[in-house]
Amino acid sequence: MSAGSDLARRLFKTLADLTADPPGVTRVAYGAGEQAAHDLVAEAALAHGAERRVDAAGNQYLILPGQDRSRVVLIGSHLDSVPHGGDYDGVAGVLLGLALQADLVAEGRTPPCDLAVLCLRAEESCWFPHSYIGSRTALGLLDPGVLDGVKRSDDGQTLAEHMRRLGLDPEGVRAGRRLYEPARIAAFIEPHIEQAPALLDAGVPVGLVTAIRGSVRFREISIGGEYAHSGATPRALRRDAGLAGARLVTAMHEMWDRFEADGLDLTVTFGEIATDPAQHGFSKVPGALHLCLDMRSADGGALRRAETELRDAAGRIAAETGTTIRLGPRTDSAPTELSEGLRACLADAAAARGVPVLALPSGAGHDAATYAGAGVPTAMVFIRNRNGSHNPDEAMEQADFEAALSVVAAALADPRLLADGRAAAA
Amino acid sequence: MSAGSDLARRLFKTLADLTADPPGVTRVAYGAGEQAAHDLVAEAALAHGAERRVDAAGNQYLILPGQDRSRVVLIGSHLDSVPHGGDYDGVAGVLLGLALQADLVAEGRTPPCDLAVLCLRAEESCWFPHSYIGSRTALGLLDPGVLDGVKRSDDGQTLAEHMRRLGLDPEGVRAGRRLYEPARIAAFIEPHIEQAPALLDAGVPVGLVTAIRGSVRFREISIGGEYAHSGATPRALRRDAGLAGARLVTAMHEMWDRFEADGLDLTVTFGEIATDPAQHGFSKVPGALHLCLDMRSADGGALRRAETELRDAAGRIAAETGTTIRLGPRTDSAPTELSEGLRACLADAAAARGVPVLALPSGAGHDAATYAGAGVPTAMVFIRNRNGSHNPDEAMEQADFEAALSVVAAALADPRLLADGRAAAA
Repeated sequence: MSAGSDLARRLFKTLADLTADPPGVTRVAYGAGEQAAHDLVAEAALAHGAERRVDAAGNQYLILPGQDRSRVVLIGSHLDSVPHGGDYDGVAGVLLGLALQADLVAEGRTPPCDLAVLCLRAEESCWFPHSYIGSRTALGLLDPGVLDGVKRSDDGQTLAEHMRRLGLDPEGVRAGRRLYEPARIAAFIEPHIEQAPALLDAGVPVGLVTAIRGSVRFREISIGGEYAHSGATPRALRRDAGLAGARLVTAMHEMWDRFEADGLDLTVTFGEIATDPAQHGFSKVPGALHLCLDMRSADGGALRRAETELRDAAGRIAAETGTTIRLGPRTDSAPTELSEGLRACLADAAAARGVPVLALPSGAGHDAATYAGAGVPTAMVFIRNRNGSHNPDEAMEQADFEAALSVVAAALADPRLLADGRAAAA
Repeated sequence: MSAGSDLARRLFKTLADLTADPPGVTRVAYGAGEQAAHDLVAEAALAHGAERRVDAAGNQYLILPGQDRSRVVLIGSHLDSVPHGGDYDGVAGVLLGLALQADLVAEGRTPPCDLAVLCLRAEESCWFPHSYIGSRTALGLLDPGVLDGVKRSDDGQTLAEHMRRLGLDPEGVRAGRRLYEPARIAAFIEPHIEQAPALLDAGVPVGLVTAIRGSVRFREISIGGEYAHSGATPRALRRDAGLAGARLVTAMHEMWDRFEADGLDLTVTFGEIATDPAQHGFSKVPGALHLCLDMRSADGGALRRAETELRDAAGRIAAETGTTIRLGPRTDSAPTELSEGLRACLADAAAARGVPVLALPSGAGHDAATYAGAGVPTAMVFIRNRNGSHNPDEAMEQADFEAALSVVAAALADPRLLADGRAAAA
């Protein structure tokens, strides 16, 4: 075990204890737990000679000076957690960056340019209902309306109020102030536990992310029918909202079959399906059904086609069942390709270290998408993890963390990395 | 408008006012509202010369003496209501009986045998979770365990405690005491508002019920899958309980298509469909789904075949989706054929009075099923009604009530009725 890996192992434990909220941990965005995590990581980094810088929004950079101080490689992720979350989501990325620094320092090596551990704020949108607050503020890209427009779910205070409370600078955020111009950032690498079992299933410790899936989401699909007696109402007179919903779910999964056959990337998830507890009943045809739908794809064209098919299916099923189907408010995010060059560097590094890797899209959103969108060469490294994420049972093995650490360390030593891996991709 | 129809019209209004519980009316079984309804109807019947008898369980008979006092024709229904129910469910049957008596008295006619208005107790199983308490006690058929075994939903007191509180005789009920042996009951006719829109849809004021549908019910179908990230979890690794439920719903409706094509009577209703609000989420594959299923048919063979198909579909869908499907506790009731002879008398009477009628099964359960099961010649007459039942919007037109009244009055004048309409059916 390297000095860095050992440091990370200890800090995973310390942070879990420090922010325990059984079951699991809770680190509210802009709350005490998140701040404690920033401070804990900073203390360790300062101890091995890093410089600490904090931007207007409270994102923290722990910078190990490099030979070329005009550029920076960022390694990190976020330090907030969902309520009763696990020990690894977000934290693994930050501690992998810290471990890299510790190993360089232990080996007496100076990186070719500055190497900063990036500790982002407010990634989990359960606290503030807005995506990527940390990375957007870090890059000066936050919609200024968000500062006073979104309120934290636990206390109703706005994002600006929380920044002020921590002595931060919401007016600087409003003005788009940032510590690093995107052009100065040679690369951003975000290591993260995998939130699904694809690596486990493949028996591979490390994943190299090809793209971050975009989404089209309908959180409030509402089907209206008519409550009626279950035994007495003739079939022709029924307007069964439950049947309409069941047909919509099965139709969208049949669409997924076709997309799969065509080799198109897609996921289709109806996460909530519910008749109305205030009105439904064992002996009533259900008159209402709520659904929510999350469709994701690394392919923007596939998402557009899926949405068209959704609208067609909803119209057809509503007509067949005598119901109304309102899809309700729509949100979306565009798929984001990550850097092919950086991925090639990482793949070569893995091959050199004998670490098996799997290339795969990220189904979840990550701050990496903001960096990639801003033109920063960006990569994500997934670490095998059991039991998904956002729950106390997240289970990453230290050996898999070390495998990822060794891959990133080797890639950082590759001179092509500072050129966005262009030579490697060519 | 006849004297009887006018009396009924006034009592519908008085009873609605007396037991108002906005919106609608509430008459709890064995509660003050039900008792007030019994007293109100009794007062009117006593005023036109009926005798009042109350059995051990509190079911009330208001008897207009006939030429042959050894036999009785019963006309009536129940007087309790669901919480915030409507003005007609149950009441229409009782007031139709009362109106018949009033018209006979007004015309100075004595019926061929005793004609009793039957006011049954406790038909709405929302109060005591047991079917047909009124008719079962009236016929001495109540399972004695029910007396101390079922508790009223609003106050937790047992059925026996409620009987005692009203000065009734639970020990008599336990011993199977009854005022009329089934053999003495020449006929039971239960008029009732239709609880579905079949008569409205057909433009017909009166329905003659062929049979009371039986049921097979699964109130706690539980599908178990695995919660997983909506965007990140590969399709092959998903165990989507929502998808499994949607497929089960659509499969059972496809079965209904086939039954319909084969001319088999059936209704299929999934009244509740719900992912778990404590665990589901917009971006999670649902790991659990609750469903309830009510299948009804006038044909016992069709019910058995539907249940076999349900079990096959559940097994197949569970295997396809990697989920477990537990159907959970099962309850059933047998379909009950009503008297063909009585129905023929009523159909002839309707034809003679120029009242269009529709023959149809009753999808809802009614006390008539207990009488038919005990060998009493039994008929049900449905009265056209808007907006279903068990809600404040029940809407029966007085003209349709009068149409039903004239049909029953004419049938009672048919000598074949006292012979269970045997001549008419032959």
